[in-house]
Amino acid sequence: MALTTREKDFSAWYNELVEQAELAQSSAVRGCMVIRPYGYAIWENMQKNLDAMFKKTGHQNAYFPLFIPKSFFSKEAKHVDGFAKEAAVVTHYRLRNDGKWGIEVDPEAKLEEELIVRPTSETIIWNTYKDWIQSYRDLPILVNQWANVVRWEMRTRLFLRSAEFLWQEGHTAHATAQEAFEETVKMRKVYQDFFKNFLAISGVAGEKSENERFAGAENTYTIEAMMQDGKALQSCTSHYLGQNFAKAFDVTFINKDNKSELVYATSWGASTRMMGGLIMSHGDDKGLIVPPGIAPIHVVIVPIWKTDDEKAMVKTFIEKKIMPQLEAVNFTIQSEFLGDVTIPLQMKVDRDDQKSPGWKFNQYELQGVPVRITVGPRDVSNGGVEMVRRDNGVKQTVNVVDLQKHVDVMLPAIQHSLLEKNESMRVKNTVTVDSYEEFTKALDEGKFVMAHWDGTVETEELIKEETKGTIRCIPQDTTEELGKCIRTGAPSRKRVLFARAY
Amino acid sequence: MALTTREKDFSAWYNELVEQAELAQSSAVRGCMVIRPYGYAIWENMQKNLDAMFKKTGHQNAYFPLFIPKSFFSKEAKHVDGFAKEAAVVTHYRLRNDGKWGIEVDPEAKLEEELIVRPTSETIIWNTYKDWIQSYRDLPILVNQWANVVRWEMRTRLFLRSAEFLWQEGHTAHATAQEAFEETVKMRKVYQDFFKNFLAISGVAGEKSENERFAGAENTYTIEAMMQDGKALQSCTSHYLGQNFAKAFDVTFINKDNKSELVYATSWGASTRMMGGLIMSHGDDKGLIVPPGIAPIHVVIVPIWKTDDEKAMVKTFIEKKIMPQLEAVNFTIQSEFLGDVTIPLQMKVDRDDQKSPGWKFNQYELQGVPVRITVGPRDVSNGGVEMVRRDNGVKQTVNVVDLQKHVDVMLPAIQHSLLEKNESMRVKNTVTVDSYEEFTKALDEGKFVMAHWDGTVETEELIKEETKGTIRCIPQDTTEELGKCIRTGAPSRKRVLFARAY
Repeated sequence: MALTTREKDFSAWYNELVEQAELAQSSAVRGCMVIRPYGYAIWENMQKNLDAMFKKTGHQNAYFPLFIPKSFFSKEAKHVDGFAKEAAVVTHYRLRNDGKWGIEVDPEAKLEEELIVRPTSETIIWNTYKDWIQSYRDLPILVNQWANVVRWEMRTRLFLRSAEFLWQEGHTAHATAQEAFEETVKMRKVYQDFFKNFLAISGVAGEKSENERFAGAENTYTIEAMMQDGKALQSCTSHYLGQNFAKAFDVTFINKDNKSELVYATSWGASTRMMGGLIMSHGDDKGLIVPPGIAPIHVVIVPIWKTDDEKAMVKTFIEKKIMPQLEAVNFTIQSEFLGDVTIPLQMKVDRDDQKSPGWKFNQYELQGVPVRITVGPRDVSNGGVEMVRRDNGVKQTVNVVDLQKHVDVMLPAIQHSLLEKNESMRVKNTVTVDSYEEFTKALDEGKFVMAHWDGTVETEELIKEETKGTIRCIPQDTTEELGKCIRTGAPSRKRVLFARAY
Repeated sequence: MALTTREKDFSAWYNELVEQAELAQSSAVRGCMVIRPYGYAIWENMQKNLDAMFKKTGHQNAYFPLFIPKSFFSKEAKHVDGFAKEAAVVTHYRLRNDGKWGIEVDPEAKLEEELIVRPTSETIIWNTYKDWIQSYRDLPILVNQWANVVRWEMRTRLFLRSAEFLWQEGHTAHATAQEAFEETVKMRKVYQDFFKNFLAISGVAGEKSENERFAGAENTYTIEAMMQDGKALQSCTSHYLGQNFAKAFDVTFINKDNKSELVYATSWGASTRMMGGLIMSHGDDKGLIVPPGIAPIHVVIVPIWKTDDEKAMVKTFIEKKIMPQLEAVNFTIQSEFLGDVTIPLQMKVDRDDQKSPGWKFNQYELQGVPVRITVGPRDVSNGGVEMVRRDNGVKQTVNVVDLQKHVDVMLPAIQHSLLEKNESMRVKNTVTVDSYEEFTKALDEGKFVMAHWDGTVETEELIKEETKGTIRCIPQDTTEELGKCIRTGAPSRKRVLFARAY
């Protein structure tokens, strides 16, 4: 079934795409999703490359408990308000037969202290770091965890906002504020490298306003990407936590001057939300478009035949002529932190004879496979194959002996073109305004809006209330300029980025 | 601090090793562990190779919800008794400020139906497969999930029995009983390949007795490894589930004869318990011994110096003469399912000048790094280095130009020797007995015991009560022979494997 077009109903388009491309689906548990194999394969490629970046920058993985004692959340005052509210609470540890047809919670098995399913792990991790840190020699600790977390969201959407989601959370401990701060910025850059060079997403990097900051952080950095409906998606965050968690969990160290000091912290994370960002950045009315840098399948080969003879002929041609060419393809991503990353070409030959070529074309377009190759009996005779680029739909017939050369060029071209398109969409749809009327109009039109703001939480909330526009970030590359707040007219020194957001 | 010896107190040895080698530690949450970076790095290598085997045998990864509605557990009658008892139960979804110093569970936010934190995922997965399966063309489904699960164990031990643990669980769906059964056996073989060729653990493969079977399974296959105290550790399981879960969740398909039929199922899993098995299989009184096939560090280089000149000289020697040799090392594991797997050599140079060489030797012995190389100023002058094999403690001085050749040979030799030692320990400590007296005595001596059993659950439970010995498995490679049950004297056709177990 054809997708609703993006223009007609962006939200319906998204939901249908996620389902029809077999990326994810809702489950029997409210707000919890099932990530289907094809969606999970994309997630695994995201994981693999991000993980390599974390390791390259000196981090190690570890694993901390799923549950957090309720009392831990009271220890960091701001953190309570921000995080402990909408959470899954474990109160009992046993079930029993109810003597009728089912089972019931055993009232005898009530926990003395309730356990919260982690919404994020700062508290349990800093409670652990206390054991690991005595002196400056134990620092820095550069640890990351891949895990599931739970936030009991009331309105959920697959990948974008779900009760349970998958993510990574880095938690580092440092001897100086300077070093921790540098780590925070470095990790924001790691994400930017990943978004740009693997996901082909060009976001706006910057700092969050106080109001939008992580609960317990002193600074929060983010990358805000523009979705095709003009809304912003916060794609990752990197927090400088100062000594807040060290204070809450009493984590001190003996510094080089032999004095006891509180440890400095950062945390940083990115989640399966990136899947939503990927879909809404690159998808079109035919379905998803996966950048080759993270595609589970780069090239799909669809054989076409009528008779058994033709089938055999096409099969031999694919195995003898096409596959060896594809196996020789070299596809490389240039990454700032990883250098040149060689991506082994993944191909799939779809020999399913229960499904028509048309059905297959449609399916691989939905799933966003970058290149499709079609081979029929006539192609075998001519020694040629038909190639179609998913991102721009351009078809070409190429001599099979030149196939490797073509794919060698085509995959980086797609990667590059997706990034360029994404960047130009964002740049084209970013406006600078100086009146509240223009401001509201621009938000209604789905723009990123650069505007002056007086720097107060009150004005920020007023603007949010009146326009649903929020400060996405204070972009890092804007220069100071004197101006007047778009809403109050009070003096301002810098434009900030407003948008409606997911 | 030196470890308690295995002979003196095996259990204390284990606990101390896990802590001192920095593999894992207890957390603030009862029964939940923290897996520390070095322990997690070993787990990641286990994951990587097992995952490659699963993919090689046609499986894909996916992800299913952490929570399972309580009512799902009532649907498969045997499964209820086996799994829904000691579980973490989520009853509320919100906390609130208690108006004093902390937070409390909001009584208004009670779930209509309680959610169970998954102890295993058959129920939620089969509820999902119902949507995926209409006809035989949708089968087989070959899916695996890497996840955390929770079982509220009363007596917990790091890696061996914890409330939360990490594992993988494969869940496959098939059109015929035969195909599902073959999958069950194949996955048991995959595990055996992994244990033998990567972990250097030689277990006994076989089938579980009815009493020890997975709740809801028709057949359960396992590999039982012998720990150095003579106890058995169930290292993995592979279950043929028949149509039990399809029936419970009403999962039918239209078969080739156009008739509706219930789907056939398997599930199979291995967990962080393997970490415990690894430790107790190969460790010695100095600490862990990690087989090179899954070692996070293969070779550690400890430089020794007194003066700054010496330090610089040793550093240059390491970088110019040693590291290039090690980078050229070829280490390959032969795997039945993966073929030849080339393992990139991981080396670490420990330049920490706050710690003495002696401290470092001790630490890397504790952590079981397969090869240690020591380089001092005299070695630089002589052009030689000292190598020590962790598994047998043998030291040798080799010319640095021959280093690659030596390591090329040494890593497979260690891998091979660990497997051989493990196998011979098990074989040597496996006895065949024909009287109950010998039987009990052998169990007391920490043996694996092959004995006749009359095939009834009653006798099995009686033996367990009297001796703490359980049927670990009915080994696949034993032949039928007539005999009498060790306990009742009733006729028996096959010896089974008894042992005390973790």
